[in-house]
Amino acid sequence: MANDRKLDGIHFMLPTPFDSNGEVDTASFNRLVGAARAASCTGVVTLGVMGESHRLTDAERGPVIDAVVAAAGDDLTVTVGTSAESGRALAARVRDAQSGGASAVMIAPAKMMKPNPPATYAYYAAAQEITEIPIVVQDLPEQTGVHFDPAFIGKLHSELPDAKYLKLEDPPTPQKITRVIESTSGTMGIFGGLGGAFLFEELRRGAIGTMTGFAYPEVLVAIHKYMASGDLERARTIFYKWLPLIRYENSAGIGLAIRKEIMKSRGFTTTADVRPPSPSIDDSTRAELKDLMNSMDLNVENL
Amino acid sequence: MANDRKLDGIHFMLPTPFDSNGEVDTASFNRLVGAARAASCTGVVTLGVMGESHRLTDAERGPVIDAVVAAAGDDLTVTVGTSAESGRALAARVRDAQSGGASAVMIAPAKMMKPNPPATYAYYAAAQEITEIPIVVQDLPEQTGVHFDPAFIGKLHSELPDAKYLKLEDPPTPQKITRVIESTSGTMGIFGGLGGAFLFEELRRGAIGTMTGFAYPEVLVAIHKYMASGDLERARTIFYKWLPLIRYENSAGIGLAIRKEIMKSRGFTTTADVRPPSPSIDDSTRAELKDLMNSMDLNVENL
Amino acid sequence: MANDRKLDGIHFMLPTPFDSNGEVDTASFNRLVGAARAASCTGVVTLGVMGESHRLTDAERGPVIDAVVAAAGDDLTVTVGTSAESGRALAARVRDAQSGGASAVMIAPAKMMKPNPPATYAYYAAAQEITEIPIVVQDLPEQTGVHFDPAFIGKLHSELPDAKYLKLEDPPTPQKITRVIESTSGTMGIFGGLGGAFLFEELRRGAIGTMTGFAYPEVLVAIHKYMASGDLERARTIFYKWLPLIRYENSAGIGLAIRKEIMKSRGFTTTADVRPPSPSIDDSTRAELKDLMNSMDLNVENL
Amino acid sequence: MANDRKLDGIHFMLPTPFDSNGEVDTASFNRLVGAARAASCTGVVTLGVMGESHRLTDAERGPVIDAVVAAAGDDLTVTVGTSAESGRALAARVRDAQSGGASAVMIAPAKMMKPNPPATYAYYAAAQEITEIPIVVQDLPEQTGVHFDPAFIGKLHSELPDAKYLKLEDPPTPQKITRVIESTSGTMGIFGGLGGAFLFEELRRGAIGTMTGFAYPEVLVAIHKYMASGDLERARTIFYKWLPLIRYENSAGIGLAIRKEIMKSRGFTTTADVRPPSPSIDDSTRAELKDLMNSMDLNVENL
Repeated sequence: MANDRKLDGIHFMLPTPFDSNGEVDTASFNRLVGAARAASCTGVVTLGVMGESHRLTDAERGPVIDAVVAAAGDDLTVTVGTSAESGRALAARVRDAQSGGASAVMIAPAKMMKPNPPATYAYYAAAQEITEIPIVVQDLPEQTGVHFDPAFIGKLHSELPDAKYLKLEDPPTPQKITRVIESTSGTMGIFGGLGGAFLFEELRRGAIGTMTGFAYPEVLVAIHKYMASGDLERARTIFYKWLPLIRYENSAGIGLAIRKEIMKSRGFTTTADVRPPSPSIDDSTRAELKDLMNSMDLNVENL
Repeated sequence: MANDRKLDGIHFMLPTPFDSNGEVDTASFNRLVGAARAASCTGVVTLGVMGESHRLTDAERGPVIDAVVAAAGDDLTVTVGTSAESGRALAARVRDAQSGGASAVMIAPAKMMKPNPPATYAYYAAAQEITEIPIVVQDLPEQTGVHFDPAFIGKLHSELPDAKYLKLEDPPTPQKITRVIESTSGTMGIFGGLGGAFLFEELRRGAIGTMTGFAYPEVLVAIHKYMASGDLERARTIFYKWLPLIRYENSAGIGLAIRKEIMKSRGFTTTADVRPPSPSIDDSTRAELKDLMNSMDLNVENL
Repeated sequence: MANDRKLDGIHFMLPTPFDSNGEVDTASFNRLVGAARAASCTGVVTLGVMGESHRLTDAERGPVIDAVVAAAGDDLTVTVGTSAESGRALAARVRDAQSGGASAVMIAPAKMMKPNPPATYAYYAAAQEITEIPIVVQDLPEQTGVHFDPAFIGKLHSELPDAKYLKLEDPPTPQKITRVIESTSGTMGIFGGLGGAFLFEELRRGAIGTMTGFAYPEVLVAIHKYMASGDLERARTIFYKWLPLIRYENSAGIGLAIRKEIMKSRGFTTTADVRPPSPSIDDSTRAELKDLMNSMDLNVENL
Repeated sequence: MANDRKLDGIHFMLPTPFDSNGEVDTASFNRLVGAARAASCTGVVTLGVMGESHRLTDAERGPVIDAVVAAAGDDLTVTVGTSAESGRALAARVRDAQSGGASAVMIAPAKMMKPNPPATYAYYAAAQEITEIPIVVQDLPEQTGVHFDPAFIGKLHSELPDAKYLKLEDPPTPQKITRVIESTSGTMGIFGGLGGAFLFEELRRGAIGTMTGFAYPEVLVAIHKYMASGDLERARTIFYKWLPLIRYENSAGIGLAIRKEIMKSRGFTTTADVRPPSPSIDDSTRAELKDLMNSMDLNVENL
């Protein structure tokens, strides 16, 4: 596995599990990471938006990293979200992630009231000064207010040696993949996002995988595998079959709570709790989800 | 058909077709409305966001209304979007729509920098002073910046006699349908939206139909029909089958261009052009769409 | 007066006056424009955001233009706001303004969900195809969501022959003036904004005037005059003296209502009404304003 | 001094000083707090937005609190900003502030994609479970996206015993003060904000003081003192005289950098550095500021 592409493939974006007192339940990470391993994922991602990293204190981050790295062992990569609101705070988080055993760091830009490419560049450069591991640039305009032009992504990629990967959350993602491939001459590894809703198109346009928290990562792995082997129609069939659930998990606002509900039902976590004010699931949604899951043939044994 | 529920069912949200000079192509409305009729829609909606109404001049509105009303005849309702940035401008548009033969008016709130429920109420009240036809309150926070609390919707519905319907675009829509039914004691007719992406759940939660521009309205009609007759599983099967395309049409930013491309391919319009700066489709997306359509069994004869 | 700089100086940004029925009160434009003349303004601006142009119907625009042009005669320029949500709608408004006798058109960009410089450029180019009069590019990010980079402004200015002027509302304006002067080699005429709150700094940095609705335009004219003649300290003294009112007129949200109140008190208009949902003034604010005006020496005879 | 109003008066909102390596310069807090004491402020506020708290790591917070509390001694109150993105993270910060010797905590709401008053209420309730000191509710919609209705503020105030104070940053502040006084029967202590730009009006409408970072806090103290003693005209004269600088410090985007520049020039801090990506000052602005300061009679001895 070439070092500069060691992240190729499907990454399971981990939620942060909580116990019934609302504390981080580090013990559950073993099962969550185990699910990624069982699904043949390349790795896991922790402390992203889906991991409710903004709801955590800094003190809670270290134990999460430790638990995930320990569970990942040597066979799974661990990408750690280290986004912050200043280059200096980012550098501190990158340093902690790196010394904690991270395989890569995922970095969304600091929020900006106005576009300021030089300031955003300097923020990423502050990470580059620390990193000895790859940087996954996270393109997340809805949360950050920062819009990445493909040319700017190309500049980050060509000037910052560790900025080898891009995680796309700027819809429509298939089209942007094509544009970023052009602006980076195809040398940047691009991950899709959006909960996998466009995974087929993303991979077909040249994405190297995805980083997302869809609760059945083995499905995404299967799609990726068949795409890689040239069996597009088999990949497509699986993708289409799972779209009803992919879509439902993407329910605006409560998608995280829905995912956690499924993960709990699969035995990955002990509770399905989110940390307020993350919106929680209500009974009608829980029933709707159960009905949806019942209606699908959720047999993931023979994808 | 009871007067206060004459809109129950599926409404085809019409795009505004343009000719190769960029002028409104009123002639194409005949075919567009004909498609709604052939699909057994309850009616059509014109001059909404999907109709690029904000890209048109006021002078272009009248001919559109005339063409649509003429094409709709007696068997299809015509709901006309009349949203404006003041109650007075709204009233003028409502008056024009009404005298032009509209069956109902659809009204999104005036944009607000800050929440101001009394101002938003007054805006709707300005329409009520004019209307002799139903008002479809449009809940469209992403475009307007105005968030409707279910209690506020209930107030509009109970105090403004014509505010009989709600068109929901505030995700997650299934959950909000449940809440609005509670806040209106189930007396307000609620339409889903979001391109039909949650149609099954919306109808199951009590929506009376949807108003959306999905390019195969007959699919939505079939789903609605089977739901109404209690054959949920048949409705579900159709819904799941069509989700790949429903999803693709919802591609952020270029969804309208994709829809127009399909409608042109179905012979509903002469061109697929959007009016700039509405984003247009590129070749890679056109190819991707064609591939998607080929892969689906787009036989809509025997739904 | 050289043709490409005929707009140099202070422009009175006109409100749209309404009568007690809420109709546009075209008769009052005579007095409003007369106030600009009496103040020795270069010209007036009509149908901008301050003129509540988004609250008007298209049908109301023509009579406003006619009234203002008639009142302006040969000695005052008339800049007409023609911003729209499409290049085509913009072109229609530019055509109307031009044939109605406008001296220039002021154009803010169409709203964008995402940055799209080519689309914004095309929008301005659609105006250029029509214009035989200068274009005042309006930099108004808070309202439009479009952020202009100085390099983009430079491109508009160098490639579109009529894009001779810039109206700045992107704070901090003094600093941006310096940057735009650099990006345009000083050949673009820049007007300040922000209600005059930074007029002294704007002029000192190279602005050629301002376009704003401060209710005492003669004050701005005096500041401009003394700056132009090199008497900075006299300009500064006047500016500082009037800052309490300039600031108060800039009260977020209700600034327009406050201005209209003052203009009515000065006899410029018959009512101080705004068109809902523009926020109106309340009694406590009216009293506060009166107190402020009483406290200042509002003698504008000998500036 | 009654316990429930011990915060009445003017509070100096402290910046976070940095040394030339970009580290927090805790030593400078002595001088900053000393300036507040010399100005006869009631207290100081630390770790607010102006303190760039979002640019700091959690590890940097403790030393800041310690330094400020030590410098404040017994004669100045210390209000500590503890805003967070979850009730749990908030509680941790409140606990730290309280055990560190804070007199009060200032809390802005967690960011919300959509209005969710119950979630915002629960967030404040999480602080109330910890506090034995007053809570200053911070109304900061531009940063948080959360708009506080006066009725909601009244509910927080009446149901959470420590929610005794409000810090207003929702313009226009004078008008909102009047509305909040009505919704709380005048029992909530309201602080103005906006850099003091409406201090005269805020106090006159019933504000008990202000919490702001204007670099000459003695000016605000003098205005407050004369207002309190009934000498409105003397207060007004001082206020108007200082408006040019108050305004300039409020320059959008770079206001913080300007303030830090002045504070350094007054000897309060060793550097004027901000932490990137906070925008820094440029030479032209520094010159403009120096000119402004020279032009004003900055003698603060005999206010």
